[in-house]
Amino acid sequence: MPSVLIHNIGLLATPMGDKALCGKAQGDISFTEDAWIAIEGEKILAVGSGIAPRCDEKIDAEERLVIPGLIDPHTHLVFGGWREHELSDKLRGIPYLEILKNGGGILSTVRDTRIATEEELTEKATDILLGMLKKGVTTCEAKSGYGLSLEAEIKQLNVLRKLCEIQEVELVSTLMAAHATPPEYKDDTQGYVDFIIDRIIPVVAEKELAKFIDVFCESGVFDSAQTEKLLKAGKEYGLLLKCHTDEINDIGGTSLAASLGAISCEHLIKCTDEGIEALSNNGTIGVLLPATSFYLGADFAPARKMIENNVPIAIGSDFNPGSCPMSSLPLAMQIGCYRYRMTPEEVLSAVTINAAAAIGMADKLGSIEPGKQADLVFLDADNLDYIFYRFGENFVSDVIKKGRTCHF
Amino acid sequence: MPSVLIHNIGLLATPMGDKALCGKAQGDISFTEDAWIAIEGEKILAVGSGIAPRCDEKIDAEERLVIPGLIDPHTHLVFGGWREHELSDKLRGIPYLEILKNGGGILSTVRDTRIATEEELTEKATDILLGMLKKGVTTCEAKSGYGLSLEAEIKQLNVLRKLCEIQEVELVSTLMAAHATPPEYKDDTQGYVDFIIDRIIPVVAEKELAKFIDVFCESGVFDSAQTEKLLKAGKEYGLLLKCHTDEINDIGGTSLAASLGAISCEHLIKCTDEGIEALSNNGTIGVLLPATSFYLGADFAPARKMIENNVPIAIGSDFNPGSCPMSSLPLAMQIGCYRYRMTPEEVLSAVTINAAAAIGMADKLGSIEPGKQADLVFLDADNLDYIFYRFGENFVSDVIKKGRTCHF
Repeated sequence: MPSVLIHNIGLLATPMGDKALCGKAQGDISFTEDAWIAIEGEKILAVGSGIAPRCDEKIDAEERLVIPGLIDPHTHLVFGGWREHELSDKLRGIPYLEILKNGGGILSTVRDTRIATEEELTEKATDILLGMLKKGVTTCEAKSGYGLSLEAEIKQLNVLRKLCEIQEVELVSTLMAAHATPPEYKDDTQGYVDFIIDRIIPVVAEKELAKFIDVFCESGVFDSAQTEKLLKAGKEYGLLLKCHTDEINDIGGTSLAASLGAISCEHLIKCTDEGIEALSNNGTIGVLLPATSFYLGADFAPARKMIENNVPIAIGSDFNPGSCPMSSLPLAMQIGCYRYRMTPEEVLSAVTINAAAAIGMADKLGSIEPGKQADLVFLDADNLDYIFYRFGENFVSDVIKKGRTCHF
Repeated sequence: MPSVLIHNIGLLATPMGDKALCGKAQGDISFTEDAWIAIEGEKILAVGSGIAPRCDEKIDAEERLVIPGLIDPHTHLVFGGWREHELSDKLRGIPYLEILKNGGGILSTVRDTRIATEEELTEKATDILLGMLKKGVTTCEAKSGYGLSLEAEIKQLNVLRKLCEIQEVELVSTLMAAHATPPEYKDDTQGYVDFIIDRIIPVVAEKELAKFIDVFCESGVFDSAQTEKLLKAGKEYGLLLKCHTDEINDIGGTSLAASLGAISCEHLIKCTDEGIEALSNNGTIGVLLPATSFYLGADFAPARKMIENNVPIAIGSDFNPGSCPMSSLPLAMQIGCYRYRMTPEEVLSAVTINAAAAIGMADKLGSIEPGKQADLVFLDADNLDYIFYRFGENFVSDVIKKGRTCHF
């Protein structure tokens, strides 16, 4: 395997280590000027500045800024249709839960996802992933949850498996059958919960189609008791736990999920002091989704309070056709920076090492260090602040995934 | 001159007419499915659907959405340096006027602009304009105001003249020497006002370097009396009037500028009912800058109230190195849509016909109609809502300026 030296890096910016950063350390970014990175195959061999080791090949970084491949720890990547026709309702201020109640919202996406073929879903998601890659995203978590039947949930997860083979962004799958109650179980959410536990989880686990299970714990969606049953069932089948909590209302999901050992709680807009304490005490990662708050005109999660209380923060795009039809992690990072008042360093940790931890891969991804996978982003920028300051622009000019230059 | 038929347009969306739309008409967009546009030289010959006239050449629009070339009616395009180092102050909540008072903010850009050569400024602005063009902007207003001396203001305006020759985005120049008081006149703003009136305005007018004059009417910058003197002096020399009003505080600038016949008042974040009435009574266009509000974490201008009160609304990027280092008009449009609760149709008018009117060019630009200049944007979208819904993405795939396909 030939070794490759990436030299003439203007500035290398990366967190360090193999676990999530939190509290004062959330912003611990190591900066190295005039740096080099030696890679071999998929992995980083060595990192330094000054005199570089001899390698078989050389890549000139042309004094650009280099950061770890970005990790989007929360997306709903695979779905049929779009919902731009709901924009006018949104602008008139109709609340999401009302749209949901009227059979619109997620349920229209469920209809479109059920009728779509695997090929159609794969093609559409491939386009989205290419757009993400061009913006520096090299790894992406993706949830099912628009099928809401055994067949259609498995179809979504199969599409994710297929996507791993045919395109360059690395994917981690999450079973989120508990995203809404399907029409077949109208007025019988408990019946659907039992169906997920009895029929969906065992099959998904057996086929190894998902690494995580996630539940939308929310008023009018799945209550605390149902969430607990679902997460425990997932755990029993070897799935790791994530949970959508405190997005619209706090119904105790954060404390519950944290106490069950969830790796992350996600959204957390309405997270209370009690929730923050539970996250902190359990080392649960807070996956925050600032672009969703922006799109919905909702509040922003109490990020600074979480940081002060030693909750590790990750940031995701929440790309989905309803509450955040935006797939740009950099824009989410910029919104996070301005609205959460997180520094560029804190945000960089949130989409690298902490996002890696949120998908259970911090041993392999999320920093530029010897032994880690060679996932690198090259930016036309002199410093880290610049890519936040000039918001709305894409400064990514090259991406390396698993040691190989991506072509786009 | 060969005629060209653009056919197979999936959807053509354009306002109509040669003046700004306001009130209920702000959202009057004409939609035509399966449309065609015939152009000859720089101009549109005919527009229709169904059977098209014979032309010498044909361009297949491949069922895309076509809209008028976007017009950015408010930018500070030409400046030296960047100010990303101020981001940390901003995140810690230090107010802009305080940064200004401490010699940071605009004054550091003034230093960088003064030492930059015309060639350096031209090269930098050319890059920015290419980025704008890729996002569908075919015409752009640009203000001076980082020179603040006779030589340096003229240098900025000369750069704009040069830019008209070497790149494709059409430019309209505004003299904004009254952007801040330069260090030479520290504690003597009145002296600087006199200098602008006696020395800068006459030279700029004589050399025909600007179409508009603009003044930053704001607490601690230029007061109402100074603004009045400056605008009247500009008017005497044949310049059309614009005025930055109500950005941070209302000090009466809106009513003043409107009564003096200003074509537009710009920012208007703190615009009162009285200001709205003045705009409405005088047909003054409100140029709103939503990305600035977003970046600063400031309030948003009362756009809906303005629309209800028959104020024509335009939207600009406000691209500048301090309060809005973002050059994406589409992102400003999306922020405007969500935060002002303006419909996609209202926003489209705001960046086409109303923006054209705000730069005094609605007879020639801002709609797709026979006799108008052939400035067209092709988008990979089926409908207008989609390009707002999928915020943060760029769907522009082709741009025609003055009848010619732009290459980027």
